[in-house]
Amino acid sequence: MPIGYSKLPPLLPVKGIKLAATAAAIRYPDRDDLAVIALAEGSQCAAVFTRNAFCAAPVSVAKDHLATTAPRYLLINSGNANAGTGITGVDDARRTCAALAGQAGCDATAVLPFSTGVIGERLAVDRLEAALPAALRGLSADNWAAAARAIMTTDTVAKGASTSLSIDGQTVTLTGIAKGSGMIRPDMATLLAYIATDAQVEAVTLQRCLQTAADRSFNRITVDGDTSTNDACVLIATGTADTGLIDASHADYDNFCNAVSELCERLAQLIIRDAEGATKFVTVRVDGGINTDECLQVAYTVAHSPLVKTALFASDPNWGRILAAVGRAGVDNLDIDRIEIYLGDVCIVRAGGVADTYQEADGQQVMDQEEILIDIRLGRGETCERVWSSDLSHEYVRINAEYRS
Amino acid sequence: MPIGYSKLPPLLPVKGIKLAATAAAIRYPDRDDLAVIALAEGSQCAAVFTRNAFCAAPVSVAKDHLATTAPRYLLINSGNANAGTGITGVDDARRTCAALAGQAGCDATAVLPFSTGVIGERLAVDRLEAALPAALRGLSADNWAAAARAIMTTDTVAKGASTSLSIDGQTVTLTGIAKGSGMIRPDMATLLAYIATDAQVEAVTLQRCLQTAADRSFNRITVDGDTSTNDACVLIATGTADTGLIDASHADYDNFCNAVSELCERLAQLIIRDAEGATKFVTVRVDGGINTDECLQVAYTVAHSPLVKTALFASDPNWGRILAAVGRAGVDNLDIDRIEIYLGDVCIVRAGGVADTYQEADGQQVMDQEEILIDIRLGRGETCERVWSSDLSHEYVRINAEYRS
Repeated sequence: MPIGYSKLPPLLPVKGIKLAATAAAIRYPDRDDLAVIALAEGSQCAAVFTRNAFCAAPVSVAKDHLATTAPRYLLINSGNANAGTGITGVDDARRTCAALAGQAGCDATAVLPFSTGVIGERLAVDRLEAALPAALRGLSADNWAAAARAIMTTDTVAKGASTSLSIDGQTVTLTGIAKGSGMIRPDMATLLAYIATDAQVEAVTLQRCLQTAADRSFNRITVDGDTSTNDACVLIATGTADTGLIDASHADYDNFCNAVSELCERLAQLIIRDAEGATKFVTVRVDGGINTDECLQVAYTVAHSPLVKTALFASDPNWGRILAAVGRAGVDNLDIDRIEIYLGDVCIVRAGGVADTYQEADGQQVMDQEEILIDIRLGRGETCERVWSSDLSHEYVRINAEYRS
Repeated sequence: MPIGYSKLPPLLPVKGIKLAATAAAIRYPDRDDLAVIALAEGSQCAAVFTRNAFCAAPVSVAKDHLATTAPRYLLINSGNANAGTGITGVDDARRTCAALAGQAGCDATAVLPFSTGVIGERLAVDRLEAALPAALRGLSADNWAAAARAIMTTDTVAKGASTSLSIDGQTVTLTGIAKGSGMIRPDMATLLAYIATDAQVEAVTLQRCLQTAADRSFNRITVDGDTSTNDACVLIATGTADTGLIDASHADYDNFCNAVSELCERLAQLIIRDAEGATKFVTVRVDGGINTDECLQVAYTVAHSPLVKTALFASDPNWGRILAAVGRAGVDNLDIDRIEIYLGDVCIVRAGGVADTYQEADGQQVMDQEEILIDIRLGRGETCERVWSSDLSHEYVRINAEYRS
């Protein structure tokens, strides 16, 4: 059961976007595992992808296609990542694009492929192709929820969020869906996430908004430190709303970018709330650093520490493990006498050791919560960064030992 | 039950070294938890310590003392790490040294203190002091095994090894003991390890031998990536054997250094064999790198990946997780087409994807073993490095969630 999130909220349609979900039996027998998202002509499309050197075949193909042609269709399957499949996998990804393009009447390069699921098995291209006619017939503006369900793998709940904001006096919509639960330590974007708006946004601006938003959201979460081969995040602006064109000089530019960032942050946090085996939603905040790099270095060292994560699972205020993780983070010339560490608002470490005001009962009260803040103050600069993470439970081991995802 | 190691082998006495173990009730009620090692006058003593910025009080004090006076006593307690205890902890560590020095008739700075156990609780100095008379009375050359047991924390078995070699035609002895099972990713040394020889070794040479040996052994193992606050490794040369003085120009210099490295490697591997919850002993070998840094970067990324570790626990040849970990290791300009990955002698990845010769049954046969080699060939240089690690089991989570170590 996800932490602080029980089910998909209502998702607002975005004018210019139609979606379909269908069952192609790629891996899962009894559920939808194929989603198609159709973009109105004239839509702008920005994307960020995994930096894993072994990036999956669909990532290579999507990057190629995006550089060539304005996208009209996103084609997403779950159950098979088409990763670690070499040149055969690239051919398979291209074949699926060509098949959809042939039926939809567009260039193959106007189709972006995405896959998520098991690594290293060949994609069932024939079954995927056979499901395309039903998908194209099913396209509807109201299918965001169905698409969110179709892209799930080990996720226990579909993930999505909607918001609206005013641009040039017009109400525009932002709706996004995402999937991801394990192998989560995005380095770009993460996992799969698709966000659309009906605002009109200039291409370079759209890409910059997405990069900024991804850096503040998907690039700040970690479950297990394992960056996936298939991470991709797409932001579409259909331009169907009657706004002026948003670029960097537009009066509502900041509003728009902040709304995209907030939506991405919401989706990213949903991934942590539904992380494999998670019983805690953990924010690691590192303040007082000299720069972003060292704040993130400390934050990720704490967030990835198996000893910290198992203590979180046990609701044990074993702050010594947090202190040890901060100390080994590799920050140069760290003055431990200036560091303060808080659990929630309880000071646990000060002046190189346990704070003299610290009472175990206070620490225990924080650790007993489902949502926990680990707040580390380095006392050497002005930079602050946050990452969101989960605990390490028996269930994490069970899921990843018993299930080949 | 450790992997491929069931009990302490016979440990050879080292002339010039006496040891004692006794029960001080520091944390554990019914076992020895205090060890004293007495060094003959004239012994040389080299040491390497943790690089964790939050190093424990005894580490600070031991470094101070070592810089001041030739050590005559090592004073080691288990059950409490005296870490995260600030200036109070430093005072406590100094008090224990002074107490032993007062009873033994030496300078307080001739005593090196070491602690291992729970972080952030104050050391029971009074109980430790009260146990010292019994420890001093019990000093004997034959107590290596008893000392090995007294320094254990979550270890399930005492760890030690002995060897002998010929120097200047004389047989000299090398005996070592170590402890460690979790919070293991040494950065220097690790955990606690004490090695002694009766050879005569010049001081700078001894320190260099130890540093080299630690880099090849304790600095190449990881259980959970968590570098302890208390890691320390000590190498003593009592000089009681009738050899010439070993320095860098000595004919048996290489023999001696290799013997020290091999003993340290044996002890380091014992720590992995007894790692918390471990069911597999895993060697990650990275060959064909441009330099040591990138080989270790890849090796540790694979060794720390929770997804790889849970697949190892499940004996699942889920090589996609290994490939993904190599891809995210952050090595610049990695050409995935040149990378080969083997499980044991089974090629699993070649030319950017699964090897065309790969059969799941072959991978399964390797994964079913207790001792597994993950062999990664980067194909871009001549450097080879190995690290030793363990899997991630239910038991690891249970130990670290249920027990505050």
